Amino acid sequence: MHELLRVRPGFQLDQVDTRSTPGVDADKKTAERLLAEGALHLSALQERLFADSRAGDTRRLLLVLQAMDTAGKGGILRHVVGAVDPQGVQIASFKKPTAEERSHHFLWRIEKRLPEAGMIGVFDRSHYEDVLIGRVRQLAPADEIERRYDEIRAFEQRVADDGTEIVKVMLHISSAEQKARLTERLERPDKHWKYNPGDVDERMLWAEYQAAYQLVLDRTDAPHAPWYVVPADHKWYARLAVQAILLAALERIDPQWPAADYDVEHEKERLAAT
Amino acid sequence: MHELLRVRPGFQLDQVDTRSTPGVDADKKTAERLLAEGALHLSALQERLFADSRAGDTRRLLLVLQAMDTAGKGGILRHVVGAVDPQGVQIASFKKPTAEERSHHFLWRIEKRLPEAGMIGVFDRSHYEDVLIGRVRQLAPADEIERRYDEIRAFEQRVADDGTEIVKVMLHISSAEQKARLTERLERPDKHWKYNPGDVDERMLWAEYQAAYQLVLDRTDAPHAPWYVVPADHKWYARLAVQAILLAALERIDPQWPAADYDVEHEKERLAAT
Repeated sequence: MHELLRVRPGFQLDQVDTRSTPGVDADKKTAERLLAEGALHLSALQERLFADSRAGDTRRLLLVLQAMDTAGKGGILRHVVGAVDPQGVQIASFKKPTAEERSHHFLWRIEKRLPEAGMIGVFDRSHYEDVLIGRVRQLAPADEIERRYDEIRAFEQRVADDGTEIVKVMLHISSAEQKARLTERLERPDKHWKYNPGDVDERMLWAEYQAAYQLVLDRTDAPHAPWYVVPADHKWYARLAVQAILLAALERIDPQWPAADYDVEHEKERLAAT
Repeated sequence: MHELLRVRPGFQLDQVDTRSTPGVDADKKTAERLLAEGALHLSALQERLFADSRAGDTRRLLLVLQAMDTAGKGGILRHVVGAVDPQGVQIASFKKPTAEERSHHFLWRIEKRLPEAGMIGVFDRSHYEDVLIGRVRQLAPADEIERRYDEIRAFEQRVADDGTEIVKVMLHISSAEQKARLTERLERPDKHWKYNPGDVDERMLWAEYQAAYQLVLDRTDAPHAPWYVVPADHKWYARLAVQAILLAALERIDPQWPAADYDVEHEKERLAAT
């Protein structure tokens, strides 16, 4: 399924049907069963990745999650990433930069949160904010924004060369779906905390954000750091799709149980003597 | 159930039956069902704690996990803590201190990993290592080790006063159970990575470690940072017990959905106009 979602040359974001479910001919209930099955597989691969790192393997996985508000990043973290051992996961949530962060290059705070060896790292928003809201809100000079795409490519190349399997996912919802989800947040008191008046301000710039995303896909998709655009109006589909993308990435790493770096028979004797 | 496991004045570690299951009259299968039910409750409380922090509430929870090797800390993280949204959990695993960490006071690296507002923090090992292996292996002068108990008490008092609900858990297994679990790690190639020859070296100092734990309980139990000793020969019991301890702690915090800090009706109108 993940191959169907991979961004290819000439990809047009506005041609994607956000309600479609490429590669999955199932209803919501079947999808939930498939997600539970996939979770066992994901968990097993994660444990092997972690085990491998204890024997000196420095490989790791990095999932970059980008989306418009309400597209379901939180649900991915909870229902897909949350299915594996939390000891093997490092989540970095990038909010509005602090004064200290702004005083550095935009990749400074990103570098610090890269996953350690053997870990599954997840970026909940990322350096892409610096060419998304950064571009739309003109938070930096135009020539600097332009330079950032190349800087991101070079940065991701280095991170990949250092043993990180990078996958980048845009959860793609329609403007109408966002409106419905924001409305629900305003209607339910237990969801009020998830709503922010700024969400409507950003929503008014929908077309500008879509154009900024298109530029991101055009200029930063790379073999070592591929973009996937996941139709996300159906939450169940988006979860299954991101799980499939993670599974494929872990299968590319193909971690194995490490061999013992001690004499097993000798240790059995030592232990028996205690 | 958690009240039964609370350390009281005069508590004697060597009087605890590590195979007992205080407060739970159930078999393993029933326990698994109870754990799944508790997980929903835990998840709901965690979400409210997190939501509350978005409205400025700085309270948080800290679970300190200590145990002899193989006692099941990993299983607690995976099956108890792993049941809640990973976005609301911060796990800090304290290994042998680095050269930089050793050049600072022993609480320096601990302070840096305290959970943020609204989070459930878990210490997988902790500052207690500095009075456990620190004492048994004489890693510091005797008078310094003695001083550390008071320093820990003062530190935990400050952290608690700052809005952290602290609970400290010792998973308590028997020497025989540890032997069985280490043997299994040596017998299964997919568990070899979990075994370390040093584990047997520490095991030979079992009595010294038990004495060091007794001292920890005697000198660092406090109303604001209570110790719980959880019989852990039965993994299913230990998981249920730690879940109950966490649930009780979150109920003491009693987080509530925060009220909107914006005009809900006005926002509905703004959103409708988009």
